[in-house]
Amino acid sequence: MKLIRSRRRSRFQFVLSGFLAFCAACACSAANAADALPSWNDGAAKKAILKFVAAVTEKGGKDYVEPAERIAVFDHDGTLWVEYPLYTQILFAFDRVKTLAPQHPEWKTTQPFKALLEGDMKTVGASGAKGVAEILLATHSGMTADEFELEASNWLATAKHPRFDRLYSRCIYQPQLELLTYLRANGFKTFIVSGGGIAFMRPITEKNYGIPPEQVVGSSAVAEFQIKDGKPVLVRQAKIDFINDKAGKPVGIYQHIGRRPILAFGNADADMQMIEYTMAGEGRRMGLFVHHTDADREYAYDRKSHVGTLDKVLDTAADNGWIIVDMKKDWKRIFPDAL
Amino acid sequence: MKLIRSRRRSRFQFVLSGFLAFCAACACSAANAADALPSWNDGAAKKAILKFVAAVTEKGGKDYVEPAERIAVFDHDGTLWVEYPLYTQILFAFDRVKTLAPQHPEWKTTQPFKALLEGDMKTVGASGAKGVAEILLATHSGMTADEFELEASNWLATAKHPRFDRLYSRCIYQPQLELLTYLRANGFKTFIVSGGGIAFMRPITEKNYGIPPEQVVGSSAVAEFQIKDGKPVLVRQAKIDFINDKAGKPVGIYQHIGRRPILAFGNADADMQMIEYTMAGEGRRMGLFVHHTDADREYAYDRKSHVGTLDKVLDTAADNGWIIVDMKKDWKRIFPDAL
Repeated sequence: MKLIRSRRRSRFQFVLSGFLAFCAACACSAANAADALPSWNDGAAKKAILKFVAAVTEKGGKDYVEPAERIAVFDHDGTLWVEYPLYTQILFAFDRVKTLAPQHPEWKTTQPFKALLEGDMKTVGASGAKGVAEILLATHSGMTADEFELEASNWLATAKHPRFDRLYSRCIYQPQLELLTYLRANGFKTFIVSGGGIAFMRPITEKNYGIPPEQVVGSSAVAEFQIKDGKPVLVRQAKIDFINDKAGKPVGIYQHIGRRPILAFGNADADMQMIEYTMAGEGRRMGLFVHHTDADREYAYDRKSHVGTLDKVLDTAADNGWIIVDMKKDWKRIFPDAL
Repeated sequence: MKLIRSRRRSRFQFVLSGFLAFCAACACSAANAADALPSWNDGAAKKAILKFVAAVTEKGGKDYVEPAERIAVFDHDGTLWVEYPLYTQILFAFDRVKTLAPQHPEWKTTQPFKALLEGDMKTVGASGAKGVAEILLATHSGMTADEFELEASNWLATAKHPRFDRLYSRCIYQPQLELLTYLRANGFKTFIVSGGGIAFMRPITEKNYGIPPEQVVGSSAVAEFQIKDGKPVLVRQAKIDFINDKAGKPVGIYQHIGRRPILAFGNADADMQMIEYTMAGEGRRMGLFVHHTDADREYAYDRKSHVGTLDKVLDTAADNGWIIVDMKKDWKRIFPDAL
C-alpha cells in the first residue's frame, strides 16, 4: 500500500509537474508579450498602445497597415529626454559662448553675451527668445558641418546634468526606449521630429534611440557648400533655414519623410499640429503626449511652463482622442541604468 | 584492341565529363556573383563597381565600412530615368497648364502660358529658365500636398513617352535597377538626390527603384500648414523652398541624410559637387557618371546639351578618379521589360 501510494504520488507528481511546466510555458509566453514595455505600468496608456499596435499589424484585420506605412514620429525635448529647466541645446550653446569667448572680444560688451560671460542669468533670461536665438546662431555657425558635429559630440559625451548626476545625453526615458524598440519590432520606422537643431541631435540618436541620422527631422541652419583649402566642405551660416516647431512640424514631416505618420508622440502644445496632422489621415491613428507630473523622479510642469507648455492639449485631449501619458502613474521607472 | 581503346575512350570521356562538370560548376558560381548586374557588360565600370562593393563589405579588410555608413546616392533625371529631350517633370507641368487653363483665363494673355496653350514651343523655349520656373510654380502650387500627390501619380501612371512607347515613369534604366538592388543586398541604404521636385518623384520611387519616399532628397516648394474645412492640411505655395541642384546637392544631403555618402552616381556637371563631397570623405569612395552615348537605344548628348550637360566632368574625371559609365558600351540593355 505504501509502495502503491508512493508510486501513485510519483505518477501524480509527474503529471502535476508536467501541468505546471505547461502553465509556466503559457505564463512565460504571455509575460513575453507584456514584457515589451516592462517600464510601463499596466494603465490605460500602456493598454492603448498594445491595442493599437496589435490592430495595425493584424494581417487581414480592418485596421491593418502595410509595414512601409507604419511611420511613428517622436518629439525629442521632453518626450525622449529631459528638457527642464532648460533645453539641453541651450545649455550647450551657453557653454560654447564661454569656450569661444577668447576669439570674440566683442562679446565682453555685447548683450546677451556679456551677461552670460558674467554669469548674470537674469539678464540673459530677460533677453528672451531673441537673445537666445542670437546665442544659438553665434555658437552654431562659422564652422564646417564636420567640425560642429565633433563639438556637439564631445559636449554630449561629457556634460552632466547636475541633479541626476548623469550625462545630459543619457537623461533619456527608459519607457520610451522600450516603446521605440517595440514599435520597430512590429515593423514601424521610427523618426524624431523635433524643434531642436537637427545637427545637435544627430550625434546621439543612433546610439540612444536606435534612430539613424537620416530619420531625424529638426530645425536647421543654412549650410553652404565651399571649397576650403582645396577640400569641399559645408560651412554652417548664422542664418535660420527652417524652424521645425508648431505648424512647422507637419511641414518638416512632409518635406523630409513624405508620408503621414500613423503614430505621433509629443509632450507640449507645440506638438499639437504634428499630432493633428497625424490623426487626420485615414484609418487607425494614435496621438500621445507625455505629461510631466513627477517632481520626485523628474519634474512636474504643464500649463504655465517656460518650456514644454502643455495647456491647450490638456483641455482638448479627451475630445480629440489623444492619450495623455502621466509620467508619475504610467512610468515604472524614468531613466535607463547606464548613466 | 578496339575494345580497350573504346574502354579507354570511355574512361577518358568520363574523366573529361567530370572535369567539364567541375569547370561548369566553377563558371556557374562565378556567373552567379556576376549575375547581380546582368545588364552591365564586362567592362571597366562593372569591374570597378564589383571591386568597390567587395572592398567596403569585406569584414576585417582595410576598406571595410559599417553597414550604417554605406550610404549610396543617385541623381534621378538622366541617371535613373530618361531626361532627354526634356525633364519629365516639365512635360508634366506643360500638361497641367492645359488641364488647368479653364480655371486661369489670365493665361490666355500671359506669357509663357499663352505660347504654351497655343503650342508655340519656340516662344516657351525663349522664355528660358525663368519662364519654365513660372510654369512649374504655377502648376505645382495652390493645392494640398495630398491633392498634388494624386495629380502627379495619375499623370505618371498614364503619360507615355512617344519615342519608346512606354510610360515616362517606366523609362528607367534596367542596369541601374540591378545596381540599386545589388547595393542594398550588400547592406547599402540607397537614396535619390535630385534637382527634380521631391513631391513629383516620390509617388514612383518605391515602386520603380525600391526607394521609399523618406529616402528621396530633391527640390521643394514651400508648404504651409492650414486648417481647411476643419481638417489639417498642407497647402503648397508658389514659392521655392530649396533648390537641390549643383552646390545645393551636398547641402540637401547634409540636411536630409546627415551622413556623407560613400558612393554617388550622377550624369551631369550639376552632379559634380555631390560627387566631390562624397569623394572628399575618409576611406574608400566611389563617384560615377552616366555618359549618354547611345543615340540608337536612348540618346547621345554631353558637352553642349540643354539638359544633363556633361562637359567639365569629361575633362576632369580621370584626374579625379571618377568612373564614366558609357551607356553604349557598358549597358547591355537600357529599359526593363515591363512598360
